[in-house]
Amino acid sequence: MSSAPIAKATTAKGEETRAQILAAAVEQASACGFESLTIGSLAEKTGLSKSGLFAHFGSKLDLQIAVLDESARRFTEAVFLPAMKVPRGLRRLRALFENMSGWAQRASLPGGCPIDAAMREYQYQPGPMRDAVLERQNLLDRELAKAVQLAIDTGELAPGTDPRQLAFDLLAISLAFNRTEILHGADEAKRRASVAFERLISHHTP
Amino acid sequence: MSSAPIAKATTAKGEETRAQILAAAVEQASACGFESLTIGSLAEKTGLSKSGLFAHFGSKLDLQIAVLDESARRFTEAVFLPAMKVPRGLRRLRALFENMSGWAQRASLPGGCPIDAAMREYQYQPGPMRDAVLERQNLLDRELAKAVQLAIDTGELAPGTDPRQLAFDLLAISLAFNRTEILHGADEAKRRASVAFERLISHHTP
Repeated sequence: MSSAPIAKATTAKGEETRAQILAAAVEQASACGFESLTIGSLAEKTGLSKSGLFAHFGSKLDLQIAVLDESARRFTEAVFLPAMKVPRGLRRLRALFENMSGWAQRASLPGGCPIDAAMREYQYQPGPMRDAVLERQNLLDRELAKAVQLAIDTGELAPGTDPRQLAFDLLAISLAFNRTEILHGADEAKRRASVAFERLISHHTP
Repeated sequence: MSSAPIAKATTAKGEETRAQILAAAVEQASACGFESLTIGSLAEKTGLSKSGLFAHFGSKLDLQIAVLDESARRFTEAVFLPAMKVPRGLRRLRALFENMSGWAQRASLPGGCPIDAAMREYQYQPGPMRDAVLERQNLLDRELAKAVQLAIDTGELAPGTDPRQLAFDLLAISLAFNRTEILHGADEAKRRASVAFERLISHHTP
């Protein structure tokens, strides 16, 4: 009985350490990609022992998948959760789109979105990392298409709107936003993306 | 005097070897990125000696820049040169857009566009490679905007069209094409990109 609080404390400490490792690893994946995630490089970065890291993540692949999951969690937290507080329909779609643009920089990941980094790294390399990345990118497509469907349901978008096509169009703008931000700065990226978004929505307004 | 033909032969042989190294290096950059381009890895891939490679490319950076240039040359060859044979205006703009989509796969680079790979690798890493990549991406923006301007000049696009905005919109579709090709296959990518392109053009038709 008396060991229960100690066990609990140990678990809480373990979870804290795991969260600390993941935070460092997400940052590293954002800046240097998922192939840079080795137990050795993270031991150096966090000041933990290699054996301590092994206790949390048995292999490089386990670590990479955990970092992908943590990146997806942070994307959800930065993009989807705030949008869920906005009424469904066009306002929510707009919030989603605005939250997507530059979310990584706002989430203190100056190296950009880690899931995009993983997409670039693994898109042509069959294996468990590629499968895991594609699954998460597919989920994004489905969630965006769902948000479009809700805006059709509220009557704010025309009934003939194809939700998958509009999701494609929104992702297109978001990808071009990232590229333009690098090339010409955040102000131009925002201006171009905003013009493209408003034109797209006005085309589908009933 | 008598040594001239020999010198010429040596140079031709040297150029052939250099081209052979570059072809292997562009392929490797497409599949594994520019950081994978070491004199050692290319010596292994081409069967040449390290010292032979050093004679052609003095450093890893020289090699990387040469590979970026060769990638840009192949992009121009696959995308711009065929479009220049099409009359200026909307037909040329359409040709450019169609040639851009999936150009790397058609150019036997199954790992995708090496310049996009370089963009992803170096966009957040200040240095000569980042500068070189941004310069080439900027050139693409300018050339696309020029092609849009020609279509305004022929009267096929409305006089109020903003060439830089339309270049942004075209690149957006092209980036989403690449992503969709990976996620849902080439047919869906082509269909979505085509719908987006036609809507964009019809919006700017006078």
